[in-house]
Amino acid sequence: MKFGGTSVADLDRIRNVARHVKREVDAGNEVAVVVSAMAGKTNELVRLCREAAPLHDAREYDAIVSSGEQVTSGLLAIVLQSMGIDARSWLGWQIALHTDEAHGSARIQSIECDMLRQRLAAGQVAVVAGFQGLGPNNRVTTLGRGGSDTSAVALAAAIEADRCDIYTDVDGVYTTDPRIVPKATRLDRVSYEEMLELASLGAKVLQVRSVELAMVHSVPVFVRSSFGDPDAQGLSGANLPDGTLICDEEEIVEKQNVTGIAASKDEAQISLRNVPDKPGVAASVFVPLAEAHINVDMIVQTISADGSTADITFTVPATDYDRSLSVLESASADIGFQLLEGAEDVVKISIVGVGMRSHAGVAAEAFRALADKGINIRAITTSEIKISVLIDSAYTELAVRSLHSVYGLDDV
Amino acid sequence: MKFGGTSVADLDRIRNVARHVKREVDAGNEVAVVVSAMAGKTNELVRLCREAAPLHDAREYDAIVSSGEQVTSGLLAIVLQSMGIDARSWLGWQIALHTDEAHGSARIQSIECDMLRQRLAAGQVAVVAGFQGLGPNNRVTTLGRGGSDTSAVALAAAIEADRCDIYTDVDGVYTTDPRIVPKATRLDRVSYEEMLELASLGAKVLQVRSVELAMVHSVPVFVRSSFGDPDAQGLSGANLPDGTLICDEEEIVEKQNVTGIAASKDEAQISLRNVPDKPGVAASVFVPLAEAHINVDMIVQTISADGSTADITFTVPATDYDRSLSVLESASADIGFQLLEGAEDVVKISIVGVGMRSHAGVAAEAFRALADKGINIRAITTSEIKISVLIDSAYTELAVRSLHSVYGLDDV
Repeated sequence: MKFGGTSVADLDRIRNVARHVKREVDAGNEVAVVVSAMAGKTNELVRLCREAAPLHDAREYDAIVSSGEQVTSGLLAIVLQSMGIDARSWLGWQIALHTDEAHGSARIQSIECDMLRQRLAAGQVAVVAGFQGLGPNNRVTTLGRGGSDTSAVALAAAIEADRCDIYTDVDGVYTTDPRIVPKATRLDRVSYEEMLELASLGAKVLQVRSVELAMVHSVPVFVRSSFGDPDAQGLSGANLPDGTLICDEEEIVEKQNVTGIAASKDEAQISLRNVPDKPGVAASVFVPLAEAHINVDMIVQTISADGSTADITFTVPATDYDRSLSVLESASADIGFQLLEGAEDVVKISIVGVGMRSHAGVAAEAFRALADKGINIRAITTSEIKISVLIDSAYTELAVRSLHSVYGLDDV
Repeated sequence: MKFGGTSVADLDRIRNVARHVKREVDAGNEVAVVVSAMAGKTNELVRLCREAAPLHDAREYDAIVSSGEQVTSGLLAIVLQSMGIDARSWLGWQIALHTDEAHGSARIQSIECDMLRQRLAAGQVAVVAGFQGLGPNNRVTTLGRGGSDTSAVALAAAIEADRCDIYTDVDGVYTTDPRIVPKATRLDRVSYEEMLELASLGAKVLQVRSVELAMVHSVPVFVRSSFGDPDAQGLSGANLPDGTLICDEEEIVEKQNVTGIAASKDEAQISLRNVPDKPGVAASVFVPLAEAHINVDMIVQTISADGSTADITFTVPATDYDRSLSVLESASADIGFQLLEGAEDVVKISIVGVGMRSHAGVAAEAFRALADKGINIRAITTSEIKISVLIDSAYTELAVRSLHSVYGLDDV
């Protein structure tokens, strides 16, 4: 069971979390709980680090910031004990949850959980501080923002849990953002591959790395709400309560062509006009960007009628937009472009579904739907289970609603 | 160097602390710094534990409360680094500072400091989270309120430091509380034995256990102010800046008969009237109290004229007063007293000085001085270096001022 910051924001909410745990214990389950810091706490600690020095040692940052989860895990253990449940808190170094040395965004390498499993088998609830681990230098590491999801999935894999339940402030994964499309429907099941695309595209329910980890270790992840009456959310037999199960594609019986529509506003478009179309020109554009650690997405190249020049369009993260332009300006002699253009008011709309592998025409439907609404497509990329189009951000809602409807996802 | 909660209350104060550290580093010293939690932080965390459950697991309490020092040590390390000083934070389990299993008031058992000493020798400042250690069960322990003083002295002993400087919000140890006697003077030197008596009697500069530890390991402890301009407080040659050195008696050249006057209001008086004076009667009074873990101080027994009954008076901590009365009521059949009386509005005034060992008449002077002011003495106890009298608390200031003057301690 994993509970995020809003679910443990104060003692009343922590008591609510304890009731969720008690329900599972009463049902005869062995339970490990991973908790985040109280909402706002991590930001407060990060601010202290920044005020101490704008550029600061990531090892000290980790020691400071990890204290938030330390407090929450202790408090939940105390509340569980007061309800008569045997429980104890575990810090990253106590488990130990070993990570690499990349302070601030460390990756889990191995989890020694013999002691923890013994305690679980003896009926003790393990309350684990999320987001933190132990580096090879015997120092505290953190896994990066949202890392508690990764802690939970990795721990679930290590202790061979039947399921990893992620409790959030929404009750599952939807076909699209319900704030944009009120008719969005909750998905009962979604495959790891689909969830990866949705998670990386703005459906901010789960950290991408946690989904990757769940896929690699085949950990069934169940996304559900931490609000409402905990006692009324028990399982009956094989039925799951309200929520979305993220699982292997094979376990999804009725595959939809399209599972969901995601919109990502964190993109910016860059176009190079009239670049000489000679071998190595792509390298001259993308090597300098890679060296500046800028991730490039959605590359489209079009050749002029006489074949002498090309237009190259691609997207970069919005936060890297200005830096990308200066990198390209500096490399202009090598590239030899005539014009460097960019746009920040763009959005990437993605249509995701494992079913589209076996169904032709999914892309065509999208293009037609957008054309019908007069929406101009700036770039297109496709993968086996995803079609992404880049459009003006002003059309975001219109595009998402149209596509949601075209693919029959509207709740009727 | 040890800095308490008010000295690290915010980032400005932490920067001030860093300047103190830099001064010592610049003077060519190897420096370990022990820090408390930011002022108010520990109370906030304790309150959270209490709200989570009034009776809570001391192991979880320790995990939660120790996070305060974790934050401060990281922040000070960051600030030192930003000033160009090589520094890193150390948590109790990282050092490791081993304690017993008495969570909430653990005692230090041993300190593995090879790694830390190597780093110190290489010129790195060690910023140590005070108040915390590692229990035999691999869990975080805390040393009890004010435990950072103990951390500092124990660490100073372990790394064989030349001196342990305790920075506080006062600039040393005074002959008495300057709020009561404006003419109180700062002591340049005070012996461990005297400081123990003063510390346990309300001169709240240092935790008693830290003084005991300093005495056992002969660690010179220097009490000084963390306020004022850090750069102006350097040492010149063998001269110490303003402050009080706590050291072996042998190192104090000019011994005063009386070093200081302390007042302790945390006492309550209990009297048993007309107790049958038979063998074992003292045991019948004090064994039940000991079994209830109540510490008894200042015992006075007087026999009636015919020798058949006795009056027994003693003091207990004010917080144990009500409980003491009920313990004695329950044991009344065994004890056989005629009347059980008590008083909470009493104060214990103590006159402390290693010089009184060799000077008769110190006690007589005190009794005369109090009698001159019409102050009634309820009980007296003496030791080699201390005379304590119990009086009505209304007379506290008058008694302290009179004694301070009688023993020639007034600043002239």
